[in-house]
Amino acid sequence: MKAAIITIGDELLIGQTVDTNSAWMGAELSKSGFDVYRIISVHDRREDIIYALNEAAGKTDVVLITGGLGPTSDDITKQTLCEYFNTHLVMNNEILSMIEEMMIHRNFPMNNKNRSQAEVPESCRVLKNAAGTAPGMWFEKDGTIYISMPGVPHEMKYLMTELVLPELNKRFTSQTIIHKNIMTYGTFEAKLAEILTTFETGLPENIKLAYLPASGVIKLRLTGTGSDYNSLSNLINEQVDKLYETIPELIYGEDEESLEMVIGKLLKSTKKTVSTAESCTGGEIAHLLTSVAGSSAYYKGSVIAYANSVKTQLLGVQDYIITKHGAVSENTAKEMAVGARGLLKTDYAIGTSGIAGPDGGTEVKSVGTVWIAVASEREVICEKHVFGNDRITNIKRFSLAALNLLRKQIINH
Amino acid sequence: MKAAIITIGDELLIGQTVDTNSAWMGAELSKSGFDVYRIISVHDRREDIIYALNEAAGKTDVVLITGGLGPTSDDITKQTLCEYFNTHLVMNNEILSMIEEMMIHRNFPMNNKNRSQAEVPESCRVLKNAAGTAPGMWFEKDGTIYISMPGVPHEMKYLMTELVLPELNKRFTSQTIIHKNIMTYGTFEAKLAEILTTFETGLPENIKLAYLPASGVIKLRLTGTGSDYNSLSNLINEQVDKLYETIPELIYGEDEESLEMVIGKLLKSTKKTVSTAESCTGGEIAHLLTSVAGSSAYYKGSVIAYANSVKTQLLGVQDYIITKHGAVSENTAKEMAVGARGLLKTDYAIGTSGIAGPDGGTEVKSVGTVWIAVASEREVICEKHVFGNDRITNIKRFSLAALNLLRKQIINH
Repeated sequence: MKAAIITIGDELLIGQTVDTNSAWMGAELSKSGFDVYRIISVHDRREDIIYALNEAAGKTDVVLITGGLGPTSDDITKQTLCEYFNTHLVMNNEILSMIEEMMIHRNFPMNNKNRSQAEVPESCRVLKNAAGTAPGMWFEKDGTIYISMPGVPHEMKYLMTELVLPELNKRFTSQTIIHKNIMTYGTFEAKLAEILTTFETGLPENIKLAYLPASGVIKLRLTGTGSDYNSLSNLINEQVDKLYETIPELIYGEDEESLEMVIGKLLKSTKKTVSTAESCTGGEIAHLLTSVAGSSAYYKGSVIAYANSVKTQLLGVQDYIITKHGAVSENTAKEMAVGARGLLKTDYAIGTSGIAGPDGGTEVKSVGTVWIAVASEREVICEKHVFGNDRITNIKRFSLAALNLLRKQIINH
Repeated sequence: MKAAIITIGDELLIGQTVDTNSAWMGAELSKSGFDVYRIISVHDRREDIIYALNEAAGKTDVVLITGGLGPTSDDITKQTLCEYFNTHLVMNNEILSMIEEMMIHRNFPMNNKNRSQAEVPESCRVLKNAAGTAPGMWFEKDGTIYISMPGVPHEMKYLMTELVLPELNKRFTSQTIIHKNIMTYGTFEAKLAEILTTFETGLPENIKLAYLPASGVIKLRLTGTGSDYNSLSNLINEQVDKLYETIPELIYGEDEESLEMVIGKLLKSTKKTVSTAESCTGGEIAHLLTSVAGSSAYYKGSVIAYANSVKTQLLGVQDYIITKHGAVSENTAKEMAVGARGLLKTDYAIGTSGIAGPDGGTEVKSVGTVWIAVASEREVICEKHVFGNDRITNIKRFSLAALNLLRKQIINH
């Protein structure tokens, strides 16, 4: 059961848009047991689109295609599919009514460009898109299914979830593939690989291990292949247990869990609350915490204290601390955390002070330096980290280090 | 002058990692005048890697390859390249010393896995990687250059910027390609395409227009091709002037400028400051503002007021306002902005209150509803927007709408 993905759009090739659709579709197809053997991105050019379709023909069961279905003239996927499948465009009145209703709801007037989106290839099965104005299209030729969807991520996801995946799951039965992710934080990839050498050597032949590092988090992915779901699942679970025995202090969660999701669960189950006092992280920790649905149950608020006056006047950091130790120091981070905890009346509070860069570094405190404090009823702890030179990466790494410190404090209490 | 990109890694195909490298490399190659005609992602599988290499052979001048160079056993790119180019691995002592120094600096012990990273194919030119432990490799065969780099984005970027791009630029001279982006905010893609119909029809044959929407921002990309840089540049500039005449109220910037960068420039040039009081956006506006280097010159801080108690006690929103109008209301958003402006002593302040979802919607206030206020010395203005159902998308859209409102207020003052 093989699948290929084709993403279409000049913007992908000249790098003005990152192709997030492929990853999402790859994950979904993979869960359904497909081997996604190739992702190809091509220009909005007739010959390139046809090349990509030809390349997949005969080699794969399913081809998912996104992009090039917009109302503007640079989009030519629909016309090219007509040529490839030897058909022509016809107006679909049901789709036209859907688009008209959608435009009324959004209070935008209908125009010819929207109207043309209701034209579809005669030979395809139309997939109604309730999330946007471009319908999806389902073609079949010589044993391969081709599904064309808009490139706008939430529209593609709507069509995939509601129409495409249910139908694919019905039509294909397959070898069982199980992926299991174990989420770790706190070490380097090469170091982790060294610690896990024995574990890896001892893995059964049908289970593979991969290391997926991102901003400090390393995802360990176990992939098992087999014929029977239950026995494969048991086999994977045994390996997961071994991982927990080998690196208990590094594992924080499973599957796609982020640190902020795990913290959310911990705070909910212990009925505790959290706030943050952020300088160098500039609201990113608050943003991560509140990106979790239902976070209002345990997250109360933050003070983003970029200016020193905000640190002293709102958070009560004493002037002499900043003068003596500097705004970027252990003492300041601790006072910020304590200040936020009192001001926002929470059980835990995070304080961060550091140098995200690219400017602001000194000989003793280089760009990438951060102090992270966590205040709780019992104590105030603080850690220093030194990361790299890139501002955006640093903000992310500082924030994850802070979340991990908070997580450990909640568990230790 | 053609180029292809091959990204290698199981994680890309099963969707556990989004391929951001391709976009970055595509943008850089494109700036150097290359036509990146295809991006292919394949598994860490010998036959798939060889297929991708064969597919590019003879059709392109340059092939950039990333991924599969890690110290762990799932990475097999180096071995496969040896096979493809009919060579074998040899220890490179210079690279070995670099890795040893790097590990000392990071205070991590050297191990066999790191040591093996200093082994390189005998026939390649080694590209020293000061940003990590896996060196790059440069091969040439039958008129095509193949460059293999690590998949870790900042390592790939280091090698590209320091070694690969300078050399490619020296060796290739080419047709001139100029891209120019005009950044817009405030309308739909189909609506914008309608407004620009006449403009688009009147474009010279060698200039193409593309629409690239993302979270409410629509990037208009003009791409010109020609032989002479100066005359092409003039031609593009004429079209840009026409765009400014046609949609002055929708254009906020150029090239890769974000709303937060434009706001930064405006605030710096007017010597004004800003703060935020955020409920539903949970710190995302603060994060966007502080993601700009040098933002401490105009951004002082924020109060993230998720709990109503923080709205009343810190920001001074009166209890009766929340009781009468609700926490999600025009009155609350306005009071939050006014409160933050006073508390944080800034010229401007943003206030946001809304329902990011997925829960919390009511019949009269659906998920996706937000009130955004901007307070200044002169007045407090407020806008209501209604977006969709996805929490993460809503937080982003709310934040961009808020930044755009702030931008307009700064310009109007």
